[in-house]
Amino acid sequence: MATRGHVITCKDPVLCTMPHRRFILGVARTLRVFFRVILGHEAAGIVESVGECVTEVQPGDHVIPCYQAECRECKFCKSGKTNLCGKVRAATGVGVMMTDRKSRFSINGTPIYHFMGTSTFSQYTVVHDVSVAKIDTKAPLDKVCLLGCGVPTGLGAVWNTAKVESGSIVAVFGLGTVGLAVAEGAKAAGASRIIGIDIDSKKFDVAKNFGVTEFVNPKDHDKPIQQVLVDQTDGGVDYSFECIGNVSVMRAALECCHKGWGTSVIVGVAASGQEICTRPFQLVTGRVWKGTAFGGFKSRSQVPWLVEKYMKKEIKVDEYITHNLTLAEINKAFDLMHEGDCLRCVLSMHT
Amino acid sequence: MATRGHVITCKDPVLCTMPHRRFILGVARTLRVFFRVILGHEAAGIVESVGECVTEVQPGDHVIPCYQAECRECKFCKSGKTNLCGKVRAATGVGVMMTDRKSRFSINGTPIYHFMGTSTFSQYTVVHDVSVAKIDTKAPLDKVCLLGCGVPTGLGAVWNTAKVESGSIVAVFGLGTVGLAVAEGAKAAGASRIIGIDIDSKKFDVAKNFGVTEFVNPKDHDKPIQQVLVDQTDGGVDYSFECIGNVSVMRAALECCHKGWGTSVIVGVAASGQEICTRPFQLVTGRVWKGTAFGGFKSRSQVPWLVEKYMKKEIKVDEYITHNLTLAEINKAFDLMHEGDCLRCVLSMHT
Repeated sequence: MATRGHVITCKDPVLCTMPHRRFILGVARTLRVFFRVILGHEAAGIVESVGECVTEVQPGDHVIPCYQAECRECKFCKSGKTNLCGKVRAATGVGVMMTDRKSRFSINGTPIYHFMGTSTFSQYTVVHDVSVAKIDTKAPLDKVCLLGCGVPTGLGAVWNTAKVESGSIVAVFGLGTVGLAVAEGAKAAGASRIIGIDIDSKKFDVAKNFGVTEFVNPKDHDKPIQQVLVDQTDGGVDYSFECIGNVSVMRAALECCHKGWGTSVIVGVAASGQEICTRPFQLVTGRVWKGTAFGGFKSRSQVPWLVEKYMKKEIKVDEYITHNLTLAEINKAFDLMHEGDCLRCVLSMHT
Repeated sequence: MATRGHVITCKDPVLCTMPHRRFILGVARTLRVFFRVILGHEAAGIVESVGECVTEVQPGDHVIPCYQAECRECKFCKSGKTNLCGKVRAATGVGVMMTDRKSRFSINGTPIYHFMGTSTFSQYTVVHDVSVAKIDTKAPLDKVCLLGCGVPTGLGAVWNTAKVESGSIVAVFGLGTVGLAVAEGAKAAGASRIIGIDIDSKKFDVAKNFGVTEFVNPKDHDKPIQQVLVDQTDGGVDYSFECIGNVSVMRAALECCHKGWGTSVIVGVAASGQEICTRPFQLVTGRVWKGTAFGGFKSRSQVPWLVEKYMKKEIKVDEYITHNLTLAEINKAFDLMHEGDCLRCVLSMHT
């Protein structure tokens, strides 16, 4: 494994997607972003050059940058219990590279910080070797770039973190890309009912295509949404997923779970400083509160497998892409996200 | 299964133990106690008579009343996922019997309510047939009465709820009977380190006998206790157990867990209205928050098995009994609990 100079430059075209703005902001506030910074963390590209000692990829390889690294040698990677790698976290958490604790980006001599170890809103970027997954060169980069974050996060929350069983009743709070991927994962797992919850009722039509079988808009009810769901499911759901980043919704997601066994998974990223609360009796009477990062997938090992599943049409990707723009149009892409009709907008470098 | 008149009277001697007062009060505030009431929920006795349709026990059987019922026919019992039975909960939660929603106790014509379906601070009591476990007649009632609550709760939190593996690092918050039973369970599970946390340092000597290998008094440190434990364990413990009922300690117990996999189990019962809080990032980065009631043991099925384990000297019981008094001396027993040197005080009917 590389110990120094372990850098990779991904050359043009790097394609990156517009993640949900709430997610970007949430992460920014939680992870301490150092400005100036190159944002972006969901992308695909081609290796332009590699640093000294880099052995696992070479120029020309097609790759997906992974904000969640996988070194295969740290305490976390070797535990067999988590996908959270500790190898480069101390550097990526403060926007620099591990070797010399410096950035590889600058404008007129002023350093520009990295973001989440990926910085993909850029034609070229520099990432650690443990932060890049080599994928099938036949995979379309302008599609599989989505497998860098949102879609695996939703699928993995169901398959790896909650381990939803066939016949389960599932509630999904928030029907953006991550929530829809949760629904897709739950459908694949054989869930009997997949209840989508969103304050925007027009999302239900799209959500049906991803497996959502019922829709509840909290605005249509006077009762708290957790009580509405408990009433509709004879005591509560088996699994719930919060895919927004709202701490009040996280509480509702836990409290709509069935006494005795209901499990709630926090997928959304809340703003810094916000806290989740509930009565401890919710847990003492058998509910379980968990969370997930990148859906529990080990990035370098499993992203290539997800790409293969996409190539075999076993998972959706194209269906999440509602818009295509160029990187120069990034502010328009943010506007689209705000308007609510955009799931993912893929930004290409040149069109 | 009995459908009416399913009552059992346990005759003299009913032996009952003094549960930790904080627990009694906590439950009282959480479960809505209706006054006047006969309190007490941890006991053993002999069946005096049975109601119509009761088939599984008969007069003369030795039994342990179970505040957590097990009917084997409700949605909960049949789920295979929980020990929480729903059969008589609606009645026991409001201090009455299921059949006619009335109490079986009175003084001069004024009803006295039941408590937790057991009401064991009494020479005679009346319980539902699904709330009593038949045990070996050779088992000493003045000892195995402890298997009605605290000891199984601690052991089961480790064995059933957390499923602690060999080699794990375990933290136990609160070294009363339940916390000591957690330590005993963790030792049996092969934990490599069992860290006891209590604000009363003199508890460590006793705790050593139950498997605690290290002791931390939060009062000896300026840093928050969760940070002290993270520092002492290279990142946090694998499993933690809150055995007090204090919501601030519940938070500390979660936050001292190792990123990626640490699991915290709430065992203590907090006062009504109090809430647990944490940053959601604690869960998103892999910690799991759970709770347990009666340690996840199915009462009628497994309490007899615990009695057998005691008879074979595979689990401790006698060691938790620090005092013996008569029921008439119950107020003295409460004082002993308050003074802090009492683990369990067994109250006999006649001495």
